[in-house]
Amino acid sequence: MPKRIYNFSAGPATLPYSVLEEAAKDIVNFKDKGIGLIEMSHRSKEFMAVADETEALVRELLEVPENYKVLFLQGGASSQFFMIPMNLLGAGKKATYLNTGTWTRKAIKEAKLFGDIDVAYSSEESSFNRVPEEDEYTVDRSSEYLYLCSNNTIYGTQFAQFPGKGSMLVCDMSSDIFSRSLDISRFGIIFAGAQKNMGPAGVTLVIIREDLLDSTPDNVPTMLRYKTHADKGSMFNTPPTFAIYCVGRVLTWLKEQGGVAAMQQRNEEKAALLYEAVDGNDFYRGHAEKASRSLMNVTFNLPTPELEAEFIAEAAALGFDGLKGHRSIGGCRASIYNAFPKEGIEKLVAFMAEFAAKKG
Amino acid sequence: MPKRIYNFSAGPATLPYSVLEEAAKDIVNFKDKGIGLIEMSHRSKEFMAVADETEALVRELLEVPENYKVLFLQGGASSQFFMIPMNLLGAGKKATYLNTGTWTRKAIKEAKLFGDIDVAYSSEESSFNRVPEEDEYTVDRSSEYLYLCSNNTIYGTQFAQFPGKGSMLVCDMSSDIFSRSLDISRFGIIFAGAQKNMGPAGVTLVIIREDLLDSTPDNVPTMLRYKTHADKGSMFNTPPTFAIYCVGRVLTWLKEQGGVAAMQQRNEEKAALLYEAVDGNDFYRGHAEKASRSLMNVTFNLPTPELEAEFIAEAAALGFDGLKGHRSIGGCRASIYNAFPKEGIEKLVAFMAEFAAKKG
Repeated sequence: MPKRIYNFSAGPATLPYSVLEEAAKDIVNFKDKGIGLIEMSHRSKEFMAVADETEALVRELLEVPENYKVLFLQGGASSQFFMIPMNLLGAGKKATYLNTGTWTRKAIKEAKLFGDIDVAYSSEESSFNRVPEEDEYTVDRSSEYLYLCSNNTIYGTQFAQFPGKGSMLVCDMSSDIFSRSLDISRFGIIFAGAQKNMGPAGVTLVIIREDLLDSTPDNVPTMLRYKTHADKGSMFNTPPTFAIYCVGRVLTWLKEQGGVAAMQQRNEEKAALLYEAVDGNDFYRGHAEKASRSLMNVTFNLPTPELEAEFIAEAAALGFDGLKGHRSIGGCRASIYNAFPKEGIEKLVAFMAEFAAKKG
Repeated sequence: MPKRIYNFSAGPATLPYSVLEEAAKDIVNFKDKGIGLIEMSHRSKEFMAVADETEALVRELLEVPENYKVLFLQGGASSQFFMIPMNLLGAGKKATYLNTGTWTRKAIKEAKLFGDIDVAYSSEESSFNRVPEEDEYTVDRSSEYLYLCSNNTIYGTQFAQFPGKGSMLVCDMSSDIFSRSLDISRFGIIFAGAQKNMGPAGVTLVIIREDLLDSTPDNVPTMLRYKTHADKGSMFNTPPTFAIYCVGRVLTWLKEQGGVAAMQQRNEEKAALLYEAVDGNDFYRGHAEKASRSLMNVTFNLPTPELEAEFIAEAAALGFDGLKGHRSIGGCRASIYNAFPKEGIEKLVAFMAEFAAKKG
């Protein structure tokens, strides 16, 4: 293994090294068949086996009920922002949205093209530093769904519990899928871009309850209908074969690590280490309210923007990469997804203490 | 290099081995920076350089004029079938389509959702075995564009010359882009899925004339507007970084081979070899009319379906893979894109002669 930097990037993000090694081998010569992975027809029995295995791993690790389809689509989570209301809403139909960050704001904008959108909660005025408690919003009975983003990458907030309100949840889990156990039956649609906890950019996982496949209005193009992809096992057209393959490799690794429950425990331990470092020293200040803190993206500030720039540069020189906060809020952010090693956090915490002692 | 099969698959298809080797190296450790290619933020300076280089290669190799944007989108060519009319048409607007195969038929179906579609030519009744001569169709003056598919992968037909009619062409070049020289200025939009002549599945190249970016109706979702992606250099959301990287590697290889004109000459030689083998023996019969023959996909039949099955199986055992015709027309098909080596065709031709001598 070459010397690796500690990659705190929010996505595309660090992946298990064993997955990279396996991908490198299969790219030039898939299972010694004399053909590279990315050269294989998506309809070859070899690739069909890869796709089937990947779907089976999603089902097993997330305990996906029988009445849900697992799809691998393109266009990123951003394409789900419009596909969901395009498929589920229409004239006279209503949905409720919780506005907890940039990605929900974007989703709300697209949804308004297709229905009557009720924004039942927003933390925009406090720089999206929290997610709501249950008693802070109401969901109209006529709402088709309650939409939320489970983890807000930019602001470092996360729903510790999912809402009990609303007849059906629709959730953007791009940055925390496979990081904790879930009760899928509460959800109508779960979607997630792969490039944080699952693999490379270029594929979006969609888990959709089967009865929703038939609600699409007639004028929706073929490629934008969930049913098109569900009916063809995500092979209506050529799927992003490499990205799907990588998701399968990452999920195999995740299973070897003990599955989602074991990963959740590790994520809690990893995040606790980092939040202790933030809270244990007046020099650092967490951005998110404590009850809303994310286990995936830890956001914090230093006393001044100048010190933040110095901190980030010094950290980078030591091999801690990607600590700069999103350009919309500044500050620092450490993204510590499933594949991020605990030792990287221990080392960062030590560096944070040193830096604070020196500059504080 | 491991022993490689001859991969005649229609796509995903064979790629230069040097590209596979380079990708394998960069996936585990990009330019020895201690981070894998697919782990890097799309906004890192390293990946931005990859994306810029890839765009520059497209511009240089295809001689793309200044007033065209080069985009890297997701969703496959199939998503362009609806995005084009969604962006360029609308109530009362008209477009003309030439129906020369499965992919144009699908494009026509989507276009009808957005405008008045005139199908000015169809070879469907003769199993799409030809493309039209100029005098076989007319284009209404009120048509916004004339739509065609330059090369029909399934049927093995290709436009040897592009139509002179219509004020502007819109063209699906998924299976012959970068295989021959072009005059881009005739086109409003050119698009192509990468998985035939450019790279792996998962990215679609779109070349669009700038003045078309402002014609999109207001109710089109953000992600489906060409302008969204043009304004952000294809980085409005996370792009499929690995696929874009691979396209850059393939185009670097193409440039080393002498560029598009040199590739065109080689493609003509390669196809001639194979068509001579088809024509030189009564045992084989080409599917496409001679004037419409494709340089990329050579389709042919044997005297009976049983002999075809035998031919395909025997060929596969010898390392000639993917010769089975598309399920919609049966028969045999040899896809010989840019990266397919001439020696593979020479060997297949020798096998065809042997097989005909034995069974004919």
